[in-house]
Amino acid sequence: MKSDLLRTLHHRPKTLLLPNAWDVASAKIFERAGFPALGTTSAGIAFALGYPDGQRISRAEMIEVVARIARAVNIPVTADVEAGYDDPVATAQAVWAAGAAGMNLEDVRDDQLVPLGAQIAILRAIRAATPNMVINARNDIFLNAIGDQSTRFERSVERLCAYRDAGADCLFVPGVRDRETIAKLVRALNAPLNILASAGLPPISELESLGVARVSVGSGPMRATLGLVDRIAGELHDHGTYNSMVDGAIPYADVNRLLAKGAA
Amino acid sequence: MKSDLLRTLHHRPKTLLLPNAWDVASAKIFERAGFPALGTTSAGIAFALGYPDGQRISRAEMIEVVARIARAVNIPVTADVEAGYDDPVATAQAVWAAGAAGMNLEDVRDDQLVPLGAQIAILRAIRAATPNMVINARNDIFLNAIGDQSTRFERSVERLCAYRDAGADCLFVPGVRDRETIAKLVRALNAPLNILASAGLPPISELESLGVARVSVGSGPMRATLGLVDRIAGELHDHGTYNSMVDGAIPYADVNRLLAKGAA
Repeated sequence: MKSDLLRTLHHRPKTLLLPNAWDVASAKIFERAGFPALGTTSAGIAFALGYPDGQRISRAEMIEVVARIARAVNIPVTADVEAGYDDPVATAQAVWAAGAAGMNLEDVRDDQLVPLGAQIAILRAIRAATPNMVINARNDIFLNAIGDQSTRFERSVERLCAYRDAGADCLFVPGVRDRETIAKLVRALNAPLNILASAGLPPISELESLGVARVSVGSGPMRATLGLVDRIAGELHDHGTYNSMVDGAIPYADVNRLLAKGAA
Repeated sequence: MKSDLLRTLHHRPKTLLLPNAWDVASAKIFERAGFPALGTTSAGIAFALGYPDGQRISRAEMIEVVARIARAVNIPVTADVEAGYDDPVATAQAVWAAGAAGMNLEDVRDDQLVPLGAQIAILRAIRAATPNMVINARNDIFLNAIGDQSTRFERSVERLCAYRDAGADCLFVPGVRDRETIAKLVRALNAPLNILASAGLPPISELESLGVARVSVGSGPMRATLGLVDRIAGELHDHGTYNSMVDGAIPYADVNRLLAKGAA
C-alpha cells in the first residue's frame, strides 16, 4: 500500500525530500526526477485556479486536483489540504478516496489557532476515519509568530506532542529556519519532524544531520515558475523578444511524451 | 463588447502581441504586464491537467479552464480549442458562454487535413452560431509539413483565403519562420495574419514591419516553466539545495495579493 511506503520513508536515516506539485505536469516532472514521493501545494493549486491561499478554494476543487495528480503518478502523494476546509474529517475521507496516501492538517483557521482540545479531537477523528492515512500535523505558532516569543518553542512543542499522541505520523513546523531551534525540536518531539525549505534554510544534508525526517518546499517551485512567467511577460511586452521563453524550455515533443504515459 | 475590442486590435499598424495562459495565475501575470488581450494555450492546459496535446482533453475540461481565466481578467481572452473537439459549433458556443471573445480553429484532425469544403462549412456555422466571435482560422500545412514542399505556399494560401471568405477574422499559420514567406503571406491573404513566436523567429518589431497583425506564443511560456521545474527538481534531488527555487520567485504575499483581486 502506498501509505505504508510513504510512512516508511519517514523512518530512515535519510531525510525524505518532498517536492510539492500544483498540477499534473509539475507532478510528472518531479516523479521523473526520482523523488520517492511527492506532496501537493495548496497555495500553488489555489493560485493556478484563481484563488488566494487560505481556504478560499473549495474542498471539491482542491480534491479534484489532488485526484488528478494521484492518478497520474506511481509514487505516493500527500495532499496539502490546509485546515481541512469546512469539515476536516470529510476532507480526509475525500483525500483518501482521491488516491492520496497522506495529508497535512493545519491548526490555524481564520487567522486563529484552533483550540488545542478541538484540534486533538479532529486528529483522532481523522485517524479513525482513515486509519492508514499518513497524517502530517502542522503547527503555525512559528510561521505566524503567534504569542510571546519567549514561550513560542514550549507552546509549539506542547501542541505538537499532543498531535503526535492523537495519531499524527509526522509533525510539521513551517517558519523555523535556524539550526539550533530545529535541533531542539527534533529532540523534544520524539516523532518525525517536517521542515519547510525556503530562502535562508540550511541545505538538506545539514537538515539530515540535525535529524529532520522530512523536508518539503511548499509553494516555492510554483512561485518560482510565476517569477519566470513575469520575466517572459516583461521581455515580450517591453522588448518584443522571447529569449526567456525559449531558453531552457522543455521541447513540445518531450512534454507530450511525458504526459502520454499514464495520462489522467 | 470585449470581442469588438479584440477585433479592433487586429487592425492597427501595431502588431497584437498575445501571450498564452494555461491557468489563472499565468493569466493574471500576463494581464498585469500590460498586454491588451490574451490567448489560452490548449497544449499548456492539457499538460497541466495531465493530457498530451491533440484533442485528448475533453471539451468540458478545456472550457472550464477558459471560463476560469475569462472570469479572472478584465482584458479580452481568445481560446485555443484545437479543432473544436467532437463538435466545433458546440465548442464555439461553449467558448462564447465561457466569456471568451475569440477562438482558434485548427484544420487538422487525427493527423489529417479536414477536407476544405467541410472546414468551410464549419467556419460558416461557427460564424452563424456566434456572430461576434473573433475567429482565428488556422492552417497546419506548414506546421506539419503536409504535401509537396513546392506547392505548400499555394495550398496554404488557397485554404486560408477560403477561411477568410467563410468568415474568419484572422488567419493563423504556425510553423512559418522565414521573413520572405511571412511577407508573401501578408500580401497574399488580405486579412490579419497570426504568426507563432518560437525559437529562431524574428523579434516582434520586424514582424510588425512585415505587416504581421498578431503574434502569439503558444505553449512556449508554459514549457519554459516546465524547464524551470525540471531544473528545480534536479537541484533539489541531486544536490539538496534550492537556489533555482528561490532565485526570482514571486514572494508569497505578492501572489496572494494578485489573486485576491477579482478571484475566480
